[in-house]
Amino acid sequence: MKIYKKELIYNVPAHRGLVKITDHVREALKESEIKEGLALVNTMSITASVFINDNEQGLHHDWEKWLEKLAPEFPKEQYEHNIKENNAHSHLKRAIMGRECVCAITDGKLDFGGFEDIFYYELDGQRDKKVLVKIIGE
Amino acid sequence: MKIYKKELIYNVPAHRGLVKITDHVREALKESEIKEGLALVNTMSITASVFINDNEQGLHHDWEKWLEKLAPEFPKEQYEHNIKENNAHSHLKRAIMGRECVCAITDGKLDFGGFEDIFYYELDGQRDKKVLVKIIGE
Amino acid sequence: MKIYKKELIYNVPAHRGLVKITDHVREALKESEIKEGLALVNTMSITASVFINDNEQGLHHDWEKWLEKLAPEFPKEQYEHNIKENNAHSHLKRAIMGRECVCAITDGKLDFGGFEDIFYYELDGQRDKKVLVKIIGE
Repeated sequence: MKIYKKELIYNVPAHRGLVKITDHVREALKESEIKEGLALVNTMSITASVFINDNEQGLHHDWEKWLEKLAPEFPKEQYEHNIKENNAHSHLKRAIMGRECVCAITDGKLDFGGFEDIFYYELDGQRDKKVLVKIIGE
Repeated sequence: MKIYKKELIYNVPAHRGLVKITDHVREALKESEIKEGLALVNTMSITASVFINDNEQGLHHDWEKWLEKLAPEFPKEQYEHNIKENNAHSHLKRAIMGRECVCAITDGKLDFGGFEDIFYYELDGQRDKKVLVKIIGE
Repeated sequence: MKIYKKELIYNVPAHRGLVKITDHVREALKESEIKEGLALVNTMSITASVFINDNEQGLHHDWEKWLEKLAPEFPKEQYEHNIKENNAHSHLKRAIMGRECVCAITDGKLDFGGFEDIFYYELDGQRDKKVLVKIIGE
């Protein structure tokens, strides 16, 4: 049994933003030398998301608008969390988008459908945040 | 360590629809001869979902209505993604329902609670779509 | 390869409520003697959730209010599921919060970011419900 771990660091200059990280996960997979197994990719931050979807700019704009409708940032006072902090909306948006993805590894590759890409969704940025890649298999 | 992979194909005749796939996953598990471990079940399509919930027809209608309220298909023009395509709402609905489930395997069976069933939720159908089952264990 | 399973039981006295279960998962991990691998933590109930986020009381209030807005309990008659049962809203809220989390195990510990805690979210309580912890690794 082989096990490999890698931490990736992202610092998104805006309050929110999407980063395509598929190639960073592929690099970790190559380093692991694991040919068959499972890869867990999760954000270690509770105000960010790792998820799989489409690398299409129009859709990325739609997500922003849609998440803002479902879990609006303003007014700040609508959230009790914001008595101590100011990012309640980031936690709620993350609940919709999810913390992690688990990927099948087959023949040393991410076993993905044609349009699957892994994204890091920063929901409260302007500082270093970590993504964990943990691969187990053989 | 044993590892097994199977691809399942679904072609839902409508734009949207639910398919209970628990028995197809059980069949893959039987073929794998794995007795203890984890099974990843994920859609390989970015406009579909794999999730676990209740096999009750009333609830399935409720999901349809509820998802349409949270991420409406119309008007198409509200989404930038629809300049190139016409399925932005499918991507958003999928964000809520999720891409994958991970199931414990114990004594050669899906280690499930009493009412857990695995569903494939087609959110942009009328064509072949794949679900991946990857099982690791011993 | 080592594999360990444990079932945790929760009985939340109210219809809804949050329970921090990180330490219960840590206890299972210690019992497993697994040092490197993956831990699946999932609710076995289809009207509850297991998810990872912040242990902050204000935010917990915000979740309650927010989920009630996105998937309201009342009026009961808006849901077809409630012809037979009365907990349609619990299923919908669970769809947003998710069924499971997968955690990396490194050096015998949950490989978590600074503020990550595992929660059991009871969405239809006042009875025993089970959470499954399944750990694989070495």
